[in-house]
Amino acid sequence: MSATWDPYSAQCPSRKLLDKISGKWTILVIGLLQNGKLRFSQLKREIDGISQKMLTQTLRSLEADGLLKRYVYPTVPVTVEYELTELGQDLNRVLTPVFKWAENNMGKIYEANSEYHI
Amino acid sequence: MSATWDPYSAQCPSRKLLDKISGKWTILVIGLLQNGKLRFSQLKREIDGISQKMLTQTLRSLEADGLLKRYVYPTVPVTVEYELTELGQDLNRVLTPVFKWAENNMGKIYEANSEYHI
Repeated sequence: MSATWDPYSAQCPSRKLLDKISGKWTILVIGLLQNGKLRFSQLKREIDGISQKMLTQTLRSLEADGLLKRYVYPTVPVTVEYELTELGQDLNRVLTPVFKWAENNMGKIYEANSEYHI
Repeated sequence: MSATWDPYSAQCPSRKLLDKISGKWTILVIGLLQNGKLRFSQLKREIDGISQKMLTQTLRSLEADGLLKRYVYPTVPVTVEYELTELGQDLNRVLTPVFKWAENNMGKIYEANSEYHI
């Protein structure tokens, strides 16, 4: 492909993609799936506070983008598992440092906030 | 600090931080500032489609978090410039790969989307 993508342009699809892949829920879901398949209920339990609807939306969007695969097993009740695709694993490699950065710099950000006066 | 942060916990401040630093607007603003100071009007022009309100909010939040500095010059009208702090430059280093990933993988994501049927 020789197309040039520009997330600074409002109409460019890469703007929308950037929004999706960088969202908090996406980062948390992908982070959990990096070590293998998980069921919907496991994801829901691990991501404290995510609603059923938001998790469903996030997973569907990631599936549509080819970042994860959905497996359905004909048990009763039906078992649904999610697994990162290669593309999803690749995205995980660039998201992990953002995740770690947030954890490592919470102290500094906290300090900055306490000193900030509008 | 010996505190342990856990973005998977809804009440942990790192969840909120992750949300803020990973947002689309944050990534775009920080990307623009990586090469030096810019004025509000320059940022607004470069980020196609961002509203005055959203840009103001994003900049204020980044300033409160110690990620950028705001300079006010007593010209008429007042000139306001923004510059990344060291912490902001550091965040930029982990966000750049996410940005590039989105640009580099638009083709694949596009393809996945066109093949996806609910």
